[in-house]
Amino acid sequence: MSILVVGSVAFDGIKTRFGQVDRVLGGSATYFSLAASYFTDVNVVAVVGEDFTQEYEDVFRKRGIDTRGIQRAPGKCFFWAGEYGEDPNMRTTLTTCLNVFENFKPAIPKEYSDSKFLFLANIDPVLQTEVRRQMNDVALVGGDTMNFWINGKRAELEETLKLIDVLVINDSETRELAQEPILPRAAKQVLAMGPQALVMKHGEYGATIFFREGAFGVGRHPFRAPTLPIEEVIDPTGAGDSFAGGFMGYIASQGVLNREVLKRAMFYGGVMGSFAVERFGPERLTELTREEIEERYQMFRELTHLE
Amino acid sequence: MSILVVGSVAFDGIKTRFGQVDRVLGGSATYFSLAASYFTDVNVVAVVGEDFTQEYEDVFRKRGIDTRGIQRAPGKCFFWAGEYGEDPNMRTTLTTCLNVFENFKPAIPKEYSDSKFLFLANIDPVLQTEVRRQMNDVALVGGDTMNFWINGKRAELEETLKLIDVLVINDSETRELAQEPILPRAAKQVLAMGPQALVMKHGEYGATIFFREGAFGVGRHPFRAPTLPIEEVIDPTGAGDSFAGGFMGYIASQGVLNREVLKRAMFYGGVMGSFAVERFGPERLTELTREEIEERYQMFRELTHLE
Repeated sequence: MSILVVGSVAFDGIKTRFGQVDRVLGGSATYFSLAASYFTDVNVVAVVGEDFTQEYEDVFRKRGIDTRGIQRAPGKCFFWAGEYGEDPNMRTTLTTCLNVFENFKPAIPKEYSDSKFLFLANIDPVLQTEVRRQMNDVALVGGDTMNFWINGKRAELEETLKLIDVLVINDSETRELAQEPILPRAAKQVLAMGPQALVMKHGEYGATIFFREGAFGVGRHPFRAPTLPIEEVIDPTGAGDSFAGGFMGYIASQGVLNREVLKRAMFYGGVMGSFAVERFGPERLTELTREEIEERYQMFRELTHLE
Repeated sequence: MSILVVGSVAFDGIKTRFGQVDRVLGGSATYFSLAASYFTDVNVVAVVGEDFTQEYEDVFRKRGIDTRGIQRAPGKCFFWAGEYGEDPNMRTTLTTCLNVFENFKPAIPKEYSDSKFLFLANIDPVLQTEVRRQMNDVALVGGDTMNFWINGKRAELEETLKLIDVLVINDSETRELAQEPILPRAAKQVLAMGPQALVMKHGEYGATIFFREGAFGVGRHPFRAPTLPIEEVIDPTGAGDSFAGGFMGYIASQGVLNREVLKRAMFYGGVMGSFAVERFGPERLTELTREEIEERYQMFRELTHLE
């Protein structure tokens, strides 16, 4: 079943210890939809500027992604530039230009109305709520957020959280949202805010899914998936969005939601995140095959599988 | 087969968000040997002061641990006091009194000479090397160290590392030792210093074992074991030493060293670490049953097991 993602389509300037690029395609909706496209049909809602030329749209098209929901506005695409330290966990933002993103009003094309899965990537929670309310007939809603909204628009975000089934955020966002440093305690508090499940991304350590009691009928026990220890993290940008794309994309492809599907989705999330970091920008996600994905899935399984 | 551990037997003063204790039994050899005692016979080499009364020796004795290698010296036991933040990963040392530990000269009782497994807990690398050289007939040598020795006695530590088969250290120690922030790259560099395998402890995220090419004939692929998400980390002190005790103790109990044994040992390490943090000091490790350990092992397995 198809999945609809609302988020940013942007350009990024990135410097890491392995090199730098001045301008590559980026944005949460870009990484998410490319990653999800290996599993299911993807519909994107975003806004771009005049610098989003045909060659960039073709990146989506070649993966079969429906781009009719990408609005065009006068001006330039959202632009972000940042630098990672020797330790790829250390990131400094150098530039953020919202550009056309500043006045983004997401509109869902009627052709997208059959999407049963929705992912609200990291945008203003007010917009997330608006989109969610336009999509009444969805089976599962995933969402992301960041410290900027947690601190700046907490009340609005709390409204959004009531409308999200699976929240996909990282450790520091979880701690900030719950105002609690111990992660499993923080998870419990976040789940009390609305979501049925919380996928907590631990960066190089993998991710854990925590469930509310009774959620999806899959039991209360958390489940943890690893990531591959990667020696050359060329560019960490987009790893989290790619995780979300693999995770949600796999779920959408299965049609049923049970514990085994969710477990495998956690692994596929990790797999897609691990591919994303192998090249600058989303390049690696444009050229994969299902065979490569399955091969890496098996590597992930070997990494943690007992007997 | 029995395991010999050399390390500290100490008293600790500990404050966490869940309470505080002024003086509990502590030390690396204490946590290690209690954890290992559920799997195999344990012989301890350490030094204690006059404040190590019978009640403390009984803690070891009740677990069947051989204490003939615990030397007695005039003065007091090593004492450490520290405080953990709201986030149990944040630790501040308030007091360190070496006391009798300052002049510790490890001597291996001849009754211990049949130990086929040796663990060099976190002590001066010069002493670790001396002990290793007194034990020529061992099958497997494990060892630990810390940033204090990595920075203060690097040359001596590099000699020790050539004599250790499995190094068991945490992420920050690995980064410091390799002077490389990316963990799998750092692992490769640490393995080039001597050990056949590196067990990298990731705190609340579990641990990964990395192998040198050809090590133990178990293949090159790393293996990762989780830890349980624990809401009430009452006292994190000794979790790493308990991990090492469960890990080495299980290996010693098996008599053979293959990939499946090492994988299960990683899980048992995590299991023993997870018990250690449930009470102040090593209390929880004094009263376990094999049934409780197996039950938790199954919980760890459920946490990561795919179909």
